[in-house]
Amino acid sequence: MQVLVSEVGPRDGLQSIKRTMPTEAKQRWIRALAASGLREIEVGSFVHPKWLPQMADAEDIVRDAVQIPGLTVLALVPNLKGAQRAMAAGAHKITVPIAASQLHNMANVRMTCEESIDAVAGICRLRDDAGSKTEVEVGIASAFGCTREGRVSEDWVMEMAVRLARVGVDSIGLSDSVGYANPAQVRRMFRRLISELGSKAGGAHLHNTRGQGLANVVAALDAGVTTIDASQAGIGGCPYAPGATGNIVTEDLVFLLESMGLDTGIDIDKLVAARAILAEALPGEPLYGHVPDAGVTKGFAYADPARSYVPAAEPREACNSAGAPA
Amino acid sequence: MQVLVSEVGPRDGLQSIKRTMPTEAKQRWIRALAASGLREIEVGSFVHPKWLPQMADAEDIVRDAVQIPGLTVLALVPNLKGAQRAMAAGAHKITVPIAASQLHNMANVRMTCEESIDAVAGICRLRDDAGSKTEVEVGIASAFGCTREGRVSEDWVMEMAVRLARVGVDSIGLSDSVGYANPAQVRRMFRRLISELGSKAGGAHLHNTRGQGLANVVAALDAGVTTIDASQAGIGGCPYAPGATGNIVTEDLVFLLESMGLDTGIDIDKLVAARAILAEALPGEPLYGHVPDAGVTKGFAYADPARSYVPAAEPREACNSAGAPA
Repeated sequence: MQVLVSEVGPRDGLQSIKRTMPTEAKQRWIRALAASGLREIEVGSFVHPKWLPQMADAEDIVRDAVQIPGLTVLALVPNLKGAQRAMAAGAHKITVPIAASQLHNMANVRMTCEESIDAVAGICRLRDDAGSKTEVEVGIASAFGCTREGRVSEDWVMEMAVRLARVGVDSIGLSDSVGYANPAQVRRMFRRLISELGSKAGGAHLHNTRGQGLANVVAALDAGVTTIDASQAGIGGCPYAPGATGNIVTEDLVFLLESMGLDTGIDIDKLVAARAILAEALPGEPLYGHVPDAGVTKGFAYADPARSYVPAAEPREACNSAGAPA
Repeated sequence: MQVLVSEVGPRDGLQSIKRTMPTEAKQRWIRALAASGLREIEVGSFVHPKWLPQMADAEDIVRDAVQIPGLTVLALVPNLKGAQRAMAAGAHKITVPIAASQLHNMANVRMTCEESIDAVAGICRLRDDAGSKTEVEVGIASAFGCTREGRVSEDWVMEMAVRLARVGVDSIGLSDSVGYANPAQVRRMFRRLISELGSKAGGAHLHNTRGQGLANVVAALDAGVTTIDASQAGIGGCPYAPGATGNIVTEDLVFLLESMGLDTGIDIDKLVAARAILAEALPGEPLYGHVPDAGVTKGFAYADPARSYVPAAEPREACNSAGAPA
C-alpha cells in the first residue's frame, strides 16, 4: 500500500518566512522536489499579496508546476476570487482553509465557521459551473484543539466534515495546525472521519510543536489514513496561532514510512539534495530534520511497492479481547 | 493504566557527557526528579571509573538515592564485581548491558553474546546466593538494528530474551540504542516479547536519532509495553555506536503519555523545573525538548488515574477484516 506524502513546504513553509524566495528559485525547488518522487506539492497560496507578499507569484508558480509530468499541483485559496485565479492557472487541486475553532477561524479568515462552510460551498458551485476538473479539498484546522479555545468539540469537527462533504468538497482531512493532537485522539478522530466520509476522508496535516508529529503519524496510519502532509526541512506554521511552530519534516517522515514498509515513491537522497536550493535561496534560514544529519540506517531498504501494508490491527470495537466477535 | 517512565538521564545521559557533574549536584538533581513524581531512576553505572570517570561516585549516588521514599533505584553493572558493588550500596535493581549484535557487544563489553548471557547468569546466581532482593534487568541493546551489523535477526533477539529469562533475569526489555527501530518493527517485536516472556517482558528504551523516538513509543504502547525509558533534556547515547545521538526527552514523553490518557504520576512543571539543576551544574550543555519551550496545550489535563487505558486495538491475527475470528 502506498502512502501519499503531500509536500507543503512551498506554501505552508514559505508563508511563515518573512523573506520572499525568488520565483525562479521556487520553481527550481519545486522541480527538485518532484524529481525526488514527491507526487503532490502545495505550491502556493492565492491569499492577497498584501497579506502574503511571499506568495505574490502564485499564478506563475502554478502555471510552471502543472507542466511537471506526474505531479499533482495543489494551491491554497482563501475565497472565491482566489479559487478563480487558481483554476485559471491550472491547479489540479485547491485547498480552502477552515478551522473548527471559531476563534481561530475569525482570526484567520474573519468568518464564522458557518460562513466559511458557505464560502466553500460557493467555491464548489463555481468549480461545477465552470465544468472544471479541479478538486476541492479542505483540511479542517484546529481539529485537535486550539491555542485560543483550548479543547475543540470532536462532534463539531465531524459535523463540519459531513457538511463540507455535502456541499461538494472532494476530500476533507484533519489538520493539527498548532501541535495539540495526541495519538489516541488522532486515531479516534480519523477512524470516525473515515467511517463518516468514506472515500471523501482526506489526509493528516500534523505539526511537531511538542515533539509529537511522527507519533501522530503512526496513529493516523493505524486509523487508515493514506495521505500525510509534511514540509521539507520542517519549516512552516500558522501565523495566526501564537506559539505554534513546526510542520513535520518530509525527510524524517519518508524515512519513517519506508522503514515501516510503506511505499512513498520518494528517493531520500534526491529529497535531501533539494535542501541545497532552499539553503542557497534563503541563506541562514533554519533547516530542520534528523535524517539529513544521521543518514539512513545501515541495511535500510526501501519498501517493496508490490507488498500490501498490513495495518496494526483491526478496530477494537469489532472483537472482544479473545478475538471473538463482541 | 499506568505507564512507568524510567528516567535514565543520570546514567545514560551523563555518561555521554565528558564533563563530570559534581556528586552534590547529581544528588540534588535526582531528588528533584523524584520530587516531580518519577518513580524509577537509573542513577549511575558501576563500569570502572577508568572508563567512565563521570560515574566514579556510583556508590555514593546509590546510597543517597535509596533513601528517597518511594523511588526505585536502578544502576548499570557491567560484570560481577559491579553487581556486588551495586548490591552492597543497596540498589533496588541492576541492569546489565548486553547487545543482540555481536559486533556491538564485542565493542562494548568485549564478550560474545553467549559469553554475556553466561555473565548475566553468574550475576543472577550471585544475587540468589546472597539472598538479595535486588532485581536483575536486561535491556537487549541493538535489538532493532546495529550501526556495525545493520539488520539484526529478530529471532536471535527473542532467543536471547528467552535464555536470559531462563538464567534468572527478572525483566528483559528491548533497547534501540542507536535509533534504528521503526514503529512496525517495535510493535511486532514487543508483541513477540510479551508473548514469549509474559511477566518477564520488560520495557522499551528508545532513541530519537532519526526523529522516530515518540513514534516508536506509540507502537510500544500498542504492543502492551508499560515501561518506557527517557532522559531529562534528552541527553545521552552510546559512545560505542558511531553516529548515535538522543535518548527521547522525558518531558516530551510525559506530556505525550498524559495527553493520551495514560497516568504517569509525574508533574510536568516540577519535572521541567529540575532542568535548572542540570543547566547550572553543566553550563552550556545542550538541553533538548519541545514541551519545555512550547508549554502544555491550553485545556491540557492530566490523565485520570482511575481510568483504565484501552489499547489501540486487538492484535490482527485474531480476527479477519470483518471482525469475525479468522
